[in-house]
Amino acid sequence: MIDLSCDYNVGCAPELLAALCAANETQHATYGSDAFSARAKEKIRAAVANPDADVWLLVGGTQTNATVLAAILRPWEGVISAASGHIAVHESGAVEASGHKVLALEADRFGRLSPETLRAYLRGFYADETYPHMVRPGALYVSHPTELGGLYTAAALRELRALCDEYGLRLFLDGARLAYALASPETDVTLPLLGELCDVFYIGGTKCGALCGEAVVFREKQPCFFPAHKQRGALLAKGFLLGLQFDALFTDGLYLRLGRQGVACALRLREGLRSLGVSFSPESGSNQQFPVLTAEQLNRLRDKVGFEVWERRADGSAVVRLCASWRTMEAEIDAVLDALR
Amino acid sequence: MIDLSCDYNVGCAPELLAALCAANETQHATYGSDAFSARAKEKIRAAVANPDADVWLLVGGTQTNATVLAAILRPWEGVISAASGHIAVHESGAVEASGHKVLALEADRFGRLSPETLRAYLRGFYADETYPHMVRPGALYVSHPTELGGLYTAAALRELRALCDEYGLRLFLDGARLAYALASPETDVTLPLLGELCDVFYIGGTKCGALCGEAVVFREKQPCFFPAHKQRGALLAKGFLLGLQFDALFTDGLYLRLGRQGVACALRLREGLRSLGVSFSPESGSNQQFPVLTAEQLNRLRDKVGFEVWERRADGSAVVRLCASWRTMEAEIDAVLDALR
Amino acid sequence: MIDLSCDYNVGCAPELLAALCAANETQHATYGSDAFSARAKEKIRAAVANPDADVWLLVGGTQTNATVLAAILRPWEGVISAASGHIAVHESGAVEASGHKVLALEADRFGRLSPETLRAYLRGFYADETYPHMVRPGALYVSHPTELGGLYTAAALRELRALCDEYGLRLFLDGARLAYALASPETDVTLPLLGELCDVFYIGGTKCGALCGEAVVFREKQPCFFPAHKQRGALLAKGFLLGLQFDALFTDGLYLRLGRQGVACALRLREGLRSLGVSFSPESGSNQQFPVLTAEQLNRLRDKVGFEVWERRADGSAVVRLCASWRTMEAEIDAVLDALR
Amino acid sequence: MIDLSCDYNVGCAPELLAALCAANETQHATYGSDAFSARAKEKIRAAVANPDADVWLLVGGTQTNATVLAAILRPWEGVISAASGHIAVHESGAVEASGHKVLALEADRFGRLSPETLRAYLRGFYADETYPHMVRPGALYVSHPTELGGLYTAAALRELRALCDEYGLRLFLDGARLAYALASPETDVTLPLLGELCDVFYIGGTKCGALCGEAVVFREKQPCFFPAHKQRGALLAKGFLLGLQFDALFTDGLYLRLGRQGVACALRLREGLRSLGVSFSPESGSNQQFPVLTAEQLNRLRDKVGFEVWERRADGSAVVRLCASWRTMEAEIDAVLDALR
Repeated sequence: MIDLSCDYNVGCAPELLAALCAANETQHATYGSDAFSARAKEKIRAAVANPDADVWLLVGGTQTNATVLAAILRPWEGVISAASGHIAVHESGAVEASGHKVLALEADRFGRLSPETLRAYLRGFYADETYPHMVRPGALYVSHPTELGGLYTAAALRELRALCDEYGLRLFLDGARLAYALASPETDVTLPLLGELCDVFYIGGTKCGALCGEAVVFREKQPCFFPAHKQRGALLAKGFLLGLQFDALFTDGLYLRLGRQGVACALRLREGLRSLGVSFSPESGSNQQFPVLTAEQLNRLRDKVGFEVWERRADGSAVVRLCASWRTMEAEIDAVLDALR
Repeated sequence: MIDLSCDYNVGCAPELLAALCAANETQHATYGSDAFSARAKEKIRAAVANPDADVWLLVGGTQTNATVLAAILRPWEGVISAASGHIAVHESGAVEASGHKVLALEADRFGRLSPETLRAYLRGFYADETYPHMVRPGALYVSHPTELGGLYTAAALRELRALCDEYGLRLFLDGARLAYALASPETDVTLPLLGELCDVFYIGGTKCGALCGEAVVFREKQPCFFPAHKQRGALLAKGFLLGLQFDALFTDGLYLRLGRQGVACALRLREGLRSLGVSFSPESGSNQQFPVLTAEQLNRLRDKVGFEVWERRADGSAVVRLCASWRTMEAEIDAVLDALR
Repeated sequence: MIDLSCDYNVGCAPELLAALCAANETQHATYGSDAFSARAKEKIRAAVANPDADVWLLVGGTQTNATVLAAILRPWEGVISAASGHIAVHESGAVEASGHKVLALEADRFGRLSPETLRAYLRGFYADETYPHMVRPGALYVSHPTELGGLYTAAALRELRALCDEYGLRLFLDGARLAYALASPETDVTLPLLGELCDVFYIGGTKCGALCGEAVVFREKQPCFFPAHKQRGALLAKGFLLGLQFDALFTDGLYLRLGRQGVACALRLREGLRSLGVSFSPESGSNQQFPVLTAEQLNRLRDKVGFEVWERRADGSAVVRLCASWRTMEAEIDAVLDALR
Repeated sequence: MIDLSCDYNVGCAPELLAALCAANETQHATYGSDAFSARAKEKIRAAVANPDADVWLLVGGTQTNATVLAAILRPWEGVISAASGHIAVHESGAVEASGHKVLALEADRFGRLSPETLRAYLRGFYADETYPHMVRPGALYVSHPTELGGLYTAAALRELRALCDEYGLRLFLDGARLAYALASPETDVTLPLLGELCDVFYIGGTKCGALCGEAVVFREKQPCFFPAHKQRGALLAKGFLLGLQFDALFTDGLYLRLGRQGVACALRLREGLRSLGVSFSPESGSNQQFPVLTAEQLNRLRDKVGFEVWERRADGSAVVRLCASWRTMEAEIDAVLDALR
C-alpha cells in the first residue's frame, strides 16, 4: 500500500540514521553542548545568513511552540494566530497552559492570516476603549506552510512584519514543515528572509526527515533560553541526538533536497488530479494536497493508498489529505493517479 | 446630570453602609470566620433552598471567575463561554493565566449561548477524531444577565444543564448582576433553581448594591476551596467587610428589592423609548438598555445624562448603553425621556 | 476583653470611615481612575519623594505579593525570601501558582534576611556549575517589619540593594505593616529611602488603619501593570473604595500617626514586660511583641486579654503574640501589665 | 580515556539501535498508537505484575516529573521531596512552572527521605492551626536510586506508602536510573513492588540504555493523561521511537541486564577503592560512586579517567562522582583502580 497518510510515520532519512549509527558508541557532551549540536547551529546560522542568530534544538512541535511563546510573552500578553493554526486547535491548550491566550483570527482558505485581517484586528483592538481589560496582543504566530498547505509570499510576510513593528508584536513562525515551503516553487520565502523578518522561527525536523527535533532560530541572542527550555522539559540529556540530525540535515543541502522530493511528488499529484478534473479544498503548493474525491474515486483508492479523510460530504464525496514527504517516490504518485484513471 | 453610565460607580446601599458603620469599632474573627459571614452564608443557603450549599465570599468578579474555574477545572480542560462572555473578552486573560482555554462559541444577539449551539459544538467536538489533541471542554460558563442584558429562561438553563450532564461539564453561572435577573419579569429563573442546576454560581454584590463582594455558591461542599481562593489572593483578611454586606443584602429581601428598583427603572426607560420609536440592539429585560439613538437624540442627552457609547455608526447614530441600578429613580428616567421628546 | 490578638480584626480608622460615608452617594470614575485614587497616588508620590513613582492600589497582601512578582519576574526566575517570609509560608503557594519558585533562605531570629546570607547564597549559586539547571534568582523579597516584628536598618537595606544590583535582582519590599516600621524609633528606614532603594514596595493599608487596600509603589513607570493586575483579579471595579482610604491615610500624616500609636503601645508593653523580667522570642521594635510567658502568667491573662499562642513549651510556658495596632490605647497596655503584676 | 563522567553521554544499547535501524523504513501509527508502543506497554504491565497498569512513554526526565505532577496534583497542592531531589534542585523550576510548590524536606546523607522525617513533617503541618494558609501536601516524590546513589528498601517504601495513605498523598517515584536500583544487591525493591506501592512511577530509559524515553506506569487507568501529556509537549509524533526502545529494553530481560552491568562495575569500583582506604560521601549501592579522593589521587586520574568533581575541599581533596553505566566494562574499572595504586 502506498502511504500518503502523513509525513511523520516513518523513521528518518538514511543520512541521519547513518550519522546516528556512527555516533552511537562515542561519548558526547550532554545537554546540547556536544560537537554535533555546535556544528548544526553553525550551519543553520550560515543557512539563515545571520551570524548572530541564536539556535536551539528542541524535540517536538507542540513543545517548541509552547516553550518559545512562554519565553517571549509577558503574562498579560496573548498570541495572535489564524483560527486554524496548530496552537489554536491541536495542541491541547499548551499555550494556555503556560498562561497565554491564543487570539484566533479568521484565516483565508489556505489557513493563512492576511495582513488585512491582522491590521483590522489591531486597529479595532486599540480603538476599543476597553482594551486595557482585554488580552494584549504580544506576538504573531504564523505557520509556513500552514496546516492546510498554504504558503506565505515574501511580500505578505514583509507586510505582517511591518504590522508587528507598528504594534509592538514579536513575529514567530512555525516551520514544522518548513522544508516543503522552502522547496516550493510557489513561494519566494527563503531561510535568510525568515532570519531577517522573524524574531524567532523554527526549522522543522520531525516532519522533514528527522526522527524528532525542531531547530529554533532567534534573530537575537537569548541569554535565558537555557533555563526557559529546561523548565518546559524541552532539553534533551542526550542532546547530540538532535545535534547530529540537524548537522546531517544541513550538510550538502540535504534539508532542501528532502523538501524538494516531497514537493515534487505533491505537485505531480496535484497536476495529475487536475487533469482528471479533480478540485481541491484548498489547492496547495506544498507537500500536502487536499483534493475533493468522489465516492467512486475514494473507492478506487481503498486498499491501495493510505490517506486521511478530512471532511465527509453528504453525497459520498470527501475532502481527503494526500500527504507526500521526503520519502515519497514519483512512481508512487503515478500509481495513485493510475488507480483513479 | 443623571448618571446611567454604569452600575458600579457609586458606593453601597444605605443599609450596608449603616451595617459597616455599626460594625467598624467591633472586633471580628478574621479570614471569613466572622459572625457576619456565618450569618450571610446561612441566609444565602436558605435563599437558594439548599442547606448543603457551600458559600464563599470573594471580592470581585474577575477574581471570582478565575478562582472558581481554577478550582473546578483540571489542567487539560477548558471552559465554554459565549464569545461575548466576560471571561472571553474583558478579564485580561485571567482564565488563561491559570492555564485554561476559554472555548468561545457564538452567542445570540442577547449574548446568550443557546442549547442548540452548545449541543452542536459538543457533538462536533467528540465527532472529530483528533479531539484528544484539542482542549477538552470541562465546564460551561454562562452569565445571567449576560453582558448585553440578556436573560436565560428556566427552560433554557435546564436544557444547558442536561447537556452538561450528558457531556460531563460542570455548570458555572456568573451572576455579577444577578439581582437584576432575579427581579426581571422576563425570566422565571430563581435562586433555588440556580442552587439546583448550577454546580456553582455567584450572587453579585459589587453591581447590585455592595461596595464590593461576590457570594459564590457551590451545590456541594468544597473541602479545598479555602486554600484555592487564598492562593488566588481572593481571601480578605477583614472578611467581615464582605460578610456584613451580604448579611445586609440578604436581610428582609434587600437584594431582590435593589434588583427590582433597577429593573423597574430600566423597563420604564425601555417602554418610554419604544413609544418614541427607538429601536434596541438588543432589547433587554434587565437593568441595562441598549437603544440605538440618532445623532439628534444623542445631542439632546449630552450634558444631561451620563451613558456609554457602545457602537458609533456611520450616519451619526449610535448604540448606547443606559444602565439603571438599584439607586436609579423613576424621576430620573422620566427626565431622560423628557429630554428626548 | 482587651484585644491584642491581631491587627486586622476591626474596621478602619474613623477618618477613613468618615470619608467613605461622605463619598458613598457620589458618582466616581471606575477601575481606579477616580479622583480619590488620583489624589492618593499624588500624595504617596510626594511621601516617597519620587515624582516618577508609579502607584497602584490593590486589595490585599497575598494578592499584592503574587501580582507584583508575576509582573516583575520572567518564567525561569524565582524570588528569594527569608524562610519565614509570608510568601514562603502563609500564602497557600500563591507565588508558585503563577509559576515562580520561592527560594527560601535562612532568616535571623527576627525573620530578617541578612546581607551575609544573601551574598553567600548568590556566590554559591553562580559558583555551582550546574546553575543553568536551577531556578535563577530574579528578585529579592523582604518584609519590613518582618512577620516576627523584625526591622531592617537603612544600612542593611542599602547592602541588600547593592547585592541586588550586583546580581541583577529586583528588590521588592512587603510593607503590609509598614506604618509600624516607619513609626518605630528602632529603624531609620523612611518612605523616601524605600522609594529610592526598592524597585517596588507596598504601603500596607489592611493592617494599618484601612478596611482593605495595599498601595504598590514602583520606582519606575509600569506601562503594563494595568492588565497585569486586572488579570490577577486585583482591580476593584469600585476603585474609589481604595482611593479614598489611601487619600485619607496620606492626609495630615494620618498613616504615620496610626503607626506611631501602635508602636507606642507595643513598646510600652515591651518595657513593662521587661521590667517584670519577661524575655522575648524575639524582641521587636514594631507593633508585635513575642514575650515568653509562664503558665501562671498565661493564666492571669486568660479572659482578660486576647492574644495568639505562637509556640507552646513543655513546661507550660509559651511564646505568645501580643499585637498592638493603630487603635490600641495606652490604658489597655497598662491593664495588661497590671494583670501580670 | 575511560569515561565515568555520567550515564547519559553515549547512544543506546546495540539491541535498541538494531531495532531502530530495522524499523526505520516502515510505516508506523503515530502519537504512541504504534505496535511497538503497544508491545512495550504490554511487556511493562507484565514486568510490574499489574495488568491494569496504565503505561505511557515520555521523552525525558524533567518533562516526565513536571507532566506527571501537573496531572496528579490540584492547584493548591504541593509535592514533598527530599531537599536534594531532582525536582527540588535541577529542573529549573519545572514543577513550580506548572503552579505547584516543591515542599523540600531534609534528606539523609544518601539523598533519601526517611519515614520519620515525613511523619514529623505531616504531623507538624496539620498540627499548625494556620495550615489552611499553607501549601497542602498532595504528593510524595522520591527518586530511586536517589541523585546520590541512595536506595530505598521495600520496608522503607512500605512505610512511606502507609504515610501517604494516612495523609492522602499520592506516591510518585522517579526511576530515571531505575535499572541500577533493580539490579543492586543492596535493595529488595522490585518492579512488582513499585507497581503495587506507587500511584505512579517511571522506568528510566535515557540513563539506562536508551537514546531517550521514560516509561510512566500508573497503578490505575488515566482517562485524561493523553491531553495532559500532549499539553506539556511530551507526546512524540513519532512515538514508535520510544515504543521500539522500550520494547527492546523489556525483551529477554535486557533492562535488568543493562542495570546489572552498571551496578557490577560500580560495586567493583567501590570494593577496590575501599581496599585502597578511600572513604565515600556517601557510599552507594547503585551505579554512581562518590569517593573522597586526595589531591594526589585526583592527579593520578587526570587524563586517564573522565569524572565529575562534586565538592572541592580546602586540603585539595575532593568528592568526585564516578559513574558506571550499562556500557562500562570491568576492565575499565580495573584500569581506574590500577591508576590509583
